[in-house]
Amino acid sequence: MAESLPIITVLCPDDDVPHAVPPGLDELEDRAEIRTTTAGELADALPGADALFLWDFFSRAVSDAWHAADSLEWIHVAAAGVDKLMFDELADSDVVVTNAQGIFDRPIAEYVLGAVLARAKDMPGSLRRQQNRTWEHRETQRVGGLTALVIGTGAIGREIAALLRAVDVEVFAAGRTAREQDPDFGTVIASDDLVAHIGTADIIVNAAPLTPQTTGLLDAEVLGAVADGAHLINIGRGETLDEAALVDALEAGPLGFATLDVFAQEPLPEDSPLWDRKDVLISAHMSGDVIGWRDALAEQFLDNARRWLDGEELHNVVDKHKGYVPRPQS
Amino acid sequence: MAESLPIITVLCPDDDVPHAVPPGLDELEDRAEIRTTTAGELADALPGADALFLWDFFSRAVSDAWHAADSLEWIHVAAAGVDKLMFDELADSDVVVTNAQGIFDRPIAEYVLGAVLARAKDMPGSLRRQQNRTWEHRETQRVGGLTALVIGTGAIGREIAALLRAVDVEVFAAGRTAREQDPDFGTVIASDDLVAHIGTADIIVNAAPLTPQTTGLLDAEVLGAVADGAHLINIGRGETLDEAALVDALEAGPLGFATLDVFAQEPLPEDSPLWDRKDVLISAHMSGDVIGWRDALAEQFLDNARRWLDGEELHNVVDKHKGYVPRPQS
Repeated sequence: MAESLPIITVLCPDDDVPHAVPPGLDELEDRAEIRTTTAGELADALPGADALFLWDFFSRAVSDAWHAADSLEWIHVAAAGVDKLMFDELADSDVVVTNAQGIFDRPIAEYVLGAVLARAKDMPGSLRRQQNRTWEHRETQRVGGLTALVIGTGAIGREIAALLRAVDVEVFAAGRTAREQDPDFGTVIASDDLVAHIGTADIIVNAAPLTPQTTGLLDAEVLGAVADGAHLINIGRGETLDEAALVDALEAGPLGFATLDVFAQEPLPEDSPLWDRKDVLISAHMSGDVIGWRDALAEQFLDNARRWLDGEELHNVVDKHKGYVPRPQS
Repeated sequence: MAESLPIITVLCPDDDVPHAVPPGLDELEDRAEIRTTTAGELADALPGADALFLWDFFSRAVSDAWHAADSLEWIHVAAAGVDKLMFDELADSDVVVTNAQGIFDRPIAEYVLGAVLARAKDMPGSLRRQQNRTWEHRETQRVGGLTALVIGTGAIGREIAALLRAVDVEVFAAGRTAREQDPDFGTVIASDDLVAHIGTADIIVNAAPLTPQTTGLLDAEVLGAVADGAHLINIGRGETLDEAALVDALEAGPLGFATLDVFAQEPLPEDSPLWDRKDVLISAHMSGDVIGWRDALAEQFLDNARRWLDGEELHNVVDKHKGYVPRPQS
């Protein structure tokens, strides 16, 4: 009797979108049985499955269908953050979780640098004046010599630091533990000490994964301690930032500007007070999504799948209790 | 009889603006007689003057008052471009002209990099959607790996090249003469050959001084030869660009976007078709004007004035026939 092929279940988005199914799955055809499914049918597609690929990368469906995962070894998520997937039973299980680390680093760093420069040069103000056919000369800000604090010392935070340094912005970071002489950041302060240190930064970038430790990290106290006129950029997760406290810190100071790509609720509700603010620039959770990103995500999964089928070590293995891929110890 | 002090006439803007008179002139009090004047009275303030400082840096008044310049040795212009000042009699005279080279290089390069990133990440599109409370995910452009052509090989063009290279944009330049292995640009093509080479650039930056050679350089033929969707950035002078041809190249292609800080007529007339275009970002001739720029311009003049009073060599001496400060030959 022929040995049966390993089974890979692929969770796809429900709606009729381009790229509803990841490109290139046929490359695995000879070596695995592929079951594409959607959230509503996930519980039926999990029994017997050895691996699960979350192409629908922000789906929360796995938790509900977990009882049907009777032989699951591996879950790959096509996202840098695994917060939407994670739940206690999964964290405590033997199932290996891998993520899309690496795909978004440079695109997000470019977005952050663009936000820094756009605010410094008042490009939103120029566009609004253009809409009114108003010619008004203003003095703008020099970016070289400013100081940025990057919250989150993962791969995305490190790439942000590199691009900001490339234009002579001074950078330091906040992470789980304070340390000096980090190869990419130099000084890393403890996220617990944000209030004491955040005031030295002209630019604050949240690039932290969403974990219990980072949920609500940027609260009224922290936002009240920023430097006068500081620019907050959030490309991490919306839940790290207290949006009501953000509005207060913009309204009454000290915060000067916020560039927000992520929100506690997405799409951002139509009645959010953030939409109308001239000191806020909003984008639709897209900072890392450059042309070709879905192909890159699919290729990254295929590469890990071949490793898995070959019994090799997987890339981007997430520490399920920490909620991110730990940095290799040097 | 006491030796009389040298006379420095300072041409100030006519209107009641902050910084109407350059700060720090009192530092020269013991060594020179300072005559502050405005355009209407310039002819009365020039007789006997040994030096002229154009604090009103875009003034065209010198040409009209030239007959009264009976002992002028030196003119300093608080601008990077001397096109507004220059006329044949001045070019043919022995009067030395110096300019503000150096003050604007880095700020303008930051503005250009900001424009490159803002377009790539569709920040204007995000702001317009924000105004309509519209959440719409889009794929954006990766900047690393794009190619930029910088027109103008002066100090500003070189700083632009350095900042673009810092984010992994490939750069080449266009100048008066073609050459390879330029220390900052690598390949420099001849501006006469723009049509043949401009199509390889995703980003085109005009940083050329306005001279007879560059007036109308970016005409219909050149703009018709750009790559599909290319981004044109003009921080040089408006007259280098044919604005009617620009509108055509945006309307019918191949040009994709234009960021314009300078215009043939400034302020940009209210009936210009540029204002309403979503593929154009307009700012009010301010790309180099970071906070503190006027103080820096005044200090730069004072430094040159002390050199002049001490009989030392002046900085930033303009080649009056070329219309810019030549690069030292190495």
